[in-house]
This record gives sequence, structure tokens and C-alpha cells, in this order.
Amino acid sequence: MRLHLRLVLWVVISVAWTSPAANGQTSLQTNGSDPLPSWNEGAAKRTIVAFVVRTTSATSPDFVPKPERIATFDNDGTLWVEQPVYAELAFAIDRVKELAPQHPEWKRDPALAAVLRGDLQALESNGERGLLRLMMVTHAGMSTTQFAAAVSRWTSSARQPRFHRLYTDCVYEPMLELLAYLRANGFKTYIVSGGGVEFMRPWTERTYGVPPEQVIGSSVKTVFRILDGTPVLTREPQVDFVDDGPGKPVGIEKFIGRRPVAAFGNSDGDLQMLEWTAAGSGARLMLLVHHTDAQREYAYDRDSAVGKLDKALTEAQKRGWVVVDMKRDWKVVFKPVQ
Amino acid sequence: MRLHLRLVLWVVISVAWTSPAANGQTSLQTNGSDPLPSWNEGAAKRTIVAFVVRTTSATSPDFVPKPERIATFDNDGTLWVEQPVYAELAFAIDRVKELAPQHPEWKRDPALAAVLRGDLQALESNGERGLLRLMMVTHAGMSTTQFAAAVSRWTSSARQPRFHRLYTDCVYEPMLELLAYLRANGFKTYIVSGGGVEFMRPWTERTYGVPPEQVIGSSVKTVFRILDGTPVLTREPQVDFVDDGPGKPVGIEKFIGRRPVAAFGNSDGDLQMLEWTAAGSGARLMLLVHHTDAQREYAYDRDSAVGKLDKALTEAQKRGWVVVDMKRDWKVVFKPVQ
Repeated sequence: MRLHLRLVLWVVISVAWTSPAANGQTSLQTNGSDPLPSWNEGAAKRTIVAFVVRTTSATSPDFVPKPERIATFDNDGTLWVEQPVYAELAFAIDRVKELAPQHPEWKRDPALAAVLRGDLQALESNGERGLLRLMMVTHAGMSTTQFAAAVSRWTSSARQPRFHRLYTDCVYEPMLELLAYLRANGFKTYIVSGGGVEFMRPWTERTYGVPPEQVIGSSVKTVFRILDGTPVLTREPQVDFVDDGPGKPVGIEKFIGRRPVAAFGNSDGDLQMLEWTAAGSGARLMLLVHHTDAQREYAYDRDSAVGKLDKALTEAQKRGWVVVDMKRDWKVVFKPVQ
Repeated sequence: MRLHLRLVLWVVISVAWTSPAANGQTSLQTNGSDPLPSWNEGAAKRTIVAFVVRTTSATSPDFVPKPERIATFDNDGTLWVEQPVYAELAFAIDRVKELAPQHPEWKRDPALAAVLRGDLQALESNGERGLLRLMMVTHAGMSTTQFAAAVSRWTSSARQPRFHRLYTDCVYEPMLELLAYLRANGFKTYIVSGGGVEFMRPWTERTYGVPPEQVIGSSVKTVFRILDGTPVLTREPQVDFVDDGPGKPVGIEKFIGRRPVAAFGNSDGDLQMLEWTAAGSGARLMLLVHHTDAQREYAYDRDSAVGKLDKALTEAQKRGWVVVDMKRDWKVVFKPVQ
């Protein structure tokens, strides 16, 4: 399970990326109760709070009118766990196993047979074509309603292998606080993820407070048809849009039509979103979550097959973007489970 | 200027459409002041008000929770004038004239030469290819920022040929009231138009109170690049998405991820949006604006080259969708100009 899995899912269409701007930073105190109690005191928290204060105070030279307070968040590795493999890949694997009895022919497909044997090494050896095949048989060939139902069934039962929690419980408490803090200050919070948009929408509202119309992601083509007198949107086995790397600013412009003033990510796939955000005029906040906590979560960056953080880390250091050190900056990692 | 111009702009990719549900109707009085003063009393107004009352009263069996109150509006012919030609075509024609000095080679292009001579018959005789060419040279080959600036310049100066008003002043007062009435009752109002999304976004917030992120439309492909150290989104001469006919439910699912409970249109290009809306469970409102007022605006339907209303009118009559008779139902047509 290496290299190729970084390309898995939606990122099968290759991308090449390249680089601008800086954010300022002041030290202001928040008044009243702490809006980010799971964050340790330090530069990261200070920069976040200062940004919110100076962009939302009517008398501030950096004031941003409410309609322009757009904040975009990556999902995998920024809001929830992406190790040991993306949740959406785990979903695809489980889904192949679930559907296999209806598809005896899958045993003759090297990639799908590998999945059915639980042999992810063999899946990887089939390269991108195998992964694309895995994605298409699990993500297409049904209606949008059927797919959403399959996702909901999976997210309400599948558990992350290390933490034995539902995936939707493997979300970062400090980031939930950050989402809520921004919203309380008039920001509109979006998810802008390389993951499939319809894989996220069934649970983002409940999990993050982000409604489906504020979720941007990768997609397959859908087609409108009348079947037996009923209008249906069917998911076709063809990639429509890859919302990763340079696709993120494209997706942001396509769906939102405004440039964000704040952007949050954790990997090289988020670099262009942060660059696009940084290049706007006025106050800006660019932040990367750096996974440095092998004990409470995972520690990975420049050499990771999943969620590789290399170029974006170098850029962030060079330009003074906020780099959250998970181990140092977060008091708790996961949200408490009831 | 016939037939082909119906295909103009974004609808150059051919579409084939086909057909479900009904809406109920009660007679309720609105309390307090009239939310739709430009609407004459009658079935259309009664049905709209009854729908809003029964979907927003907490004790109503048809109550719709606020996050699900999605209302989608077509633009051309539903919110603003689309005759004698779509505003976006007028923009493209003006833009060709504006840019022609920098493009002497356009004189050798039959379609563009026809536009430069003001000979729209000749443009039409070049068929869809000529129209596509016109669209691509005026809508692509620049950054998203440059295109938005060109649109803003045009909308602040170009005038509709019959009414001699800015196009953004050729908007229907009764529909502005309807947008505001729905929003005041917790509905999220979207534009879902066959027109170019980036052609609408620069002015929809000011004109309709609909922010850019609630505008869905046709689009060209955009590409993220770093030019001289600055991140830029460039518009490529390639159609990305045609948001018309069966493309409208596709666009709605892609951008919103929820099915609307109310949908408003005026032509066959809106039929699938209304069908998709009607096919959801619970209370629904489907409405068509029928242009019946040659004196105050225009009268056209089944045989019109622009905004043809034929199949959708038949469906609406069959299923009891609201058909607004502009002449009978609207006290005033246009918003008052200051």
C-alpha cells in the first residue's frame, strides 16, 4: 500500500503543481470565554483568533464584509483521519465485498479479485487502472439516491481499524471548534475535498455542521433519466471532476464564485487552494494541520503515501502560513464519543 | 434569427428530454401585509401563498425543515427579459465588436465577420459552429477576473433595445417580490440557468439578492496556473457543463446536493428541473411564467425561437402546475427604475 494509494480515488487524473503572498499576525486577546478550548495557547491559536478579530471588527482596517467571509476546509487529514487509508477507499473495499455475490465476474478481474481476497498489495500492483476500476464499480451504476443510502449504511457501521470508532467519530475536536468559531463570526464554512462529493454529503451536516450545498468534491458524471415514469439521476462510470491540487481553486470558483479569505488543509493536495486564498487582497489566513502525533493519532509528512505534506510544508514555512503541530497545539485530538 | 438561436450560447450540446407528480392546493389567507403586491389576486398568487404557509407552519403536516427549503429559479425569461435575444448573446455580440480591433483575423471568420457586420442572419446561417465560435472567443481566453470585469462593464452600460433600460433593470418586479417572500420564509433561493454562471454572478447579488454561491449555470473549463508568481484561473475555450434541460437536475444535484421543494421556470429548458422537483416527497411548488403580454413585455410560447414553451406547458396543464399568465396575473411587469 504505497505511492499509488496516494493517487487513489479521485486523484487518478494526474496533476502538476507549482506557487504566492503572506499573512500578517497581531496579538489580540479574545474577550469572554475561550472559543477554542481544545487548542493549547501558542502561535497557531493566537494567529487564528487575531485573524477572526481583525476581519470581523467593523472598525478594523482588515474588516471583511459578511458575504465575503468564505472559509474552505479540506476534509481527509484536516477534519477527520485519513490513515491508514482514506475512508472512501475503505468504503469502496467494503462495498466490493458486499456487492460481490451479485457480480461473479468480478473474480476474474485482477483488481477486484485482489480486493475480495483482502490483498491490497495485489490491488496496488494493478496500478491506477485497478484503482479506477474499484472506484467506478462502487461509485457508479446506481442512482444518486441509492449511492447516498449505501454511504449512510456504511458510515453508521464501519469502524476505523485503529481507533475502533465510526469514521464520523474520528473527527478532530479542535477543528470542530474552529468551524463553529468561524461560523459564530459570520464565516460561511465549506468543505473542499479530493474525496467524492456524494460520499461526504450524507453525513457532513450532522458531523461538521456543513450542509450539502457547502460541500465541494470530486464527482462522476450523472445523467437525468425518466425510468418507469420517475425522474432519476444515475451515476455514470466516468470521472466528471477531480477536486484535488489545482482542481481545488477550480472547484472553489465553480461552486462558490468567490475567493476564500481563509483556507485549511494538511497536504500537498491543498497547496493550490492555499495559494489561491493567499493571493487575494486584504487579510488572509492559511493553515496546515501537520500530523506529528504518532501516539494520539499518526505522524507523517514528506514521505507519506497518504496525505503527503512536502511542497506545501516548505511553502508554508517560507511564507509564514500557520502550521499546526498536532502534538504541541492540540489538547485533545478526537471529539469525545457519547 | 430563428431556430438556431434557441440553441445558442450554452445549449449547443444537444439534449433530448422526456417526463411525474402533482401539487396540492389549499386556500389560505396570508396574515398581515401583502407579500406579493405586484401580483393580482388569482389562482397563481393563492397557490404560492398557500404553499409557503403550509410548508413553513410548524404544525402543518406539510412542514419542511428550514435546511430543506430550497427554491430554484431559471433566469432568462423567468427573472429577466430574454427577448428579442438572450442578454448573453447581446453581450457576446458587443464583446466581439469591442475586441475586433485586436483581432484582424476575425474578419476572415464567417461567423465573426457576420457579427461585425451586424448581420445576424448570416451568423445563423453558420449554424451551431458559428455560435459556439462566437461564444468561445468572447467567453474564453482570459482570466476569470478579466471576464467578470468585462461583464460588469457591459451590464452597467448596455441597454435592452426595446425598453432602453439596462438589462439588469429589465427584471420582473413580481418575481423579485417572490424571491424576497420565499427568503423571508426561510427558503434558500438559487438561480439555475442555461446561461453562463460567470456571466450572472457579477450582478445577481445586487439585482436579485442571490449571492454568487447560489448561482448555477453553464460553464467553460477553467485551469489554475501560476503566471509571473500570481495564481490565475484561466477560462479555456471548451464547454465544461451545459445547465439546460436535463442538465438542470444534474446541476442542482452537483451544486446543491438536495432536491428543491419549489422550482420556477418559463420554457422547455426548465421542464426537467420541474419534473425533478415534483418527484420529491411532500409539498411541492412548480411554476411556469407564461409570456402573454405583448404590450407590456412579449407574448410567445410554443413556436418561439427564444424561450420556447411547448412540452413544459402541456405538462404543466396536465399536472396542475402553476402557469402564470403574465398579462392577467401581474399588476406590473418591471421593477420601477430610480
